Amino acid sequence: MVSERECIDLIARLANSQDQEYLLKGIGDDCAVLRKNGDSILLLTTDTLVEGVHFDLAWHSPYLLGRKSASVNLSDIAAMGGKPRACLLCIGFPGKVPSWLDDFMQGFIEVLQAHDTLLVGGDTVMSRNDTVFSVTVLGEVDKHMVCYRSGAKPGDMIWVSGSLGNAAAGIELCRRDFCTGKDPQGKWHDLTKAHLDPEALVELGEILAASGLVHAMMDISDGLATDLAHLCRESGVGAEIEPDLLPVDDLLREAAAMLGTSPMDWVLRGGEDYQLLFTAEAAAEKQLRRFVAGRTERNIFAIGRIVAGQCVNLVSGAGHQEISFQGYEHFKE
Amino acid sequence: MVSERECIDLIARLANSQDQEYLLKGIGDDCAVLRKNGDSILLLTTDTLVEGVHFDLAWHSPYLLGRKSASVNLSDIAAMGGKPRACLLCIGFPGKVPSWLDDFMQGFIEVLQAHDTLLVGGDTVMSRNDTVFSVTVLGEVDKHMVCYRSGAKPGDMIWVSGSLGNAAAGIELCRRDFCTGKDPQGKWHDLTKAHLDPEALVELGEILAASGLVHAMMDISDGLATDLAHLCRESGVGAEIEPDLLPVDDLLREAAAMLGTSPMDWVLRGGEDYQLLFTAEAAAEKQLRRFVAGRTERNIFAIGRIVAGQCVNLVSGAGHQEISFQGYEHFKE
Repeated sequence: MVSERECIDLIARLANSQDQEYLLKGIGDDCAVLRKNGDSILLLTTDTLVEGVHFDLAWHSPYLLGRKSASVNLSDIAAMGGKPRACLLCIGFPGKVPSWLDDFMQGFIEVLQAHDTLLVGGDTVMSRNDTVFSVTVLGEVDKHMVCYRSGAKPGDMIWVSGSLGNAAAGIELCRRDFCTGKDPQGKWHDLTKAHLDPEALVELGEILAASGLVHAMMDISDGLATDLAHLCRESGVGAEIEPDLLPVDDLLREAAAMLGTSPMDWVLRGGEDYQLLFTAEAAAEKQLRRFVAGRTERNIFAIGRIVAGQCVNLVSGAGHQEISFQGYEHFKE
Repeated sequence: MVSERECIDLIARLANSQDQEYLLKGIGDDCAVLRKNGDSILLLTTDTLVEGVHFDLAWHSPYLLGRKSASVNLSDIAAMGGKPRACLLCIGFPGKVPSWLDDFMQGFIEVLQAHDTLLVGGDTVMSRNDTVFSVTVLGEVDKHMVCYRSGAKPGDMIWVSGSLGNAAAGIELCRRDFCTGKDPQGKWHDLTKAHLDPEALVELGEILAASGLVHAMMDISDGLATDLAHLCRESGVGAEIEPDLLPVDDLLREAAAMLGTSPMDWVLRGGEDYQLLFTAEAAAEKQLRRFVAGRTERNIFAIGRIVAGQCVNLVSGAGHQEISFQGYEHFKE
């Protein structure tokens, strides 16, 4: 049996992932990057969501599912510092089109419109068993601004755009029915929202890219431990994270206590937060903070540093603990 | 229950299908058409193939399935007269990656390389039950050459690029085991190949577009009766087909006789031939034939004419018979 990583490696090996005149970056980043005329380059990304694997209609309303299906794809464009432009949607249903498609489409289109992205094509196919959504987004970015995963340098500070682990806590709460009957006052709303209706940080991605200070960037879809390890592998570096610097919401700690779970497990290994993870020269810290603060109300959080090597380590008074690639994997070995 | 057409209509209604500065053509053609800089425009198309619905591994070898998954998407680019440039592949498997992925990828890449198309991105996801391939292709075409479905005019001749119905005959032969044990001499090879390994007519599509004589074009994926009705609807015209002019292989007639089926059912209603269907001014017939003959060994076949109205009719000594939208539909009403 092969793992998901081996499977992607196989595709990448067979694919034309080497840089060419037309292809600036193939497999191995958030988007494929293609040369356009002039200074503009094209970003292309695709994702498939399968019912029962990537979403559960038992707690995910079709409207929010539509929003999420758009957001997670726009997030890949954001992760390169790009501007989403056009979107294709392919839907597969077993047997018949469900009555909730209208609500799904409303949410989907709403997020696209909020980011000036056009739905330009769509198709429906019959599937055998699974309800499947396949979304492709085309984006653009100035060639001087595009942020790859591969630019991190030893000495860089590592940053994230917001609280980690909320989506992992949120899905656990949904699974245990806390997003409906057991949560009448909406106490856990911020956590369940992180899972049900994550935000694509398109504007922040553009700001960070425009700063000219960011060396490497990606979005966190598979958890910090795994995604930072990807960034390190692409950059040929290692990383040290200080646990005390990680932005963690009090509400997440409260949910972990209630459910008898370790909050750090969610924070380090939980997927689908869609926060931006990026690195910038340590000396540019103040400049970066000023640049961002002048353009958005969003905060950014320094969580550690890039070092020589190839591992992601948690570094605290208690010593080093390697966490590379711990977390969500689609296929288990 | 809604039909596939109603479902696509819903998506189109909600989508930004009106022409805009950036979007030259949204939902309702083979590809979305986006404005690029200068004279070049972008084509974007996506398709999802589901095991048990769009392919059956009982008779489809992974290698040929890989070839077909690429070809059917390149065909949408060919149908606009474009040149495919880049491709994304998303694969969903239930539980584990199958051992035949290597063979699939070899066939997939081989077709892309034959058309100078780069595989620039890929992803694997876990599905619950179905094996699913989702392919996106980005193409380019000169803005003076792009061929929409919507340009047909009364008086135009209607053309197809080759024999019809072979893929429908081929899948029926495969279902009845004639592509393996019962066909040791490969007697039915041309028919089963039309189903198992169809060709994307990219070069011919470019030639037709370059002729400047083609008013409307699409590929035949859902059968002549249905696809010509689409072309007529987009163009606001009707069509008359002369059954005697339809290119039909003797082998198809032989297979129909053996299986006790009507050959015309396959020819008119059978999907997945991926032949090009196009119209051009009747007075340009000789000029078009000369232009094509000077550039490819492929033949083209005039099969009828565009008329005022909105129906697709078979016209023969026996009178008129309407066939609009008869044939393959993904969802039954």
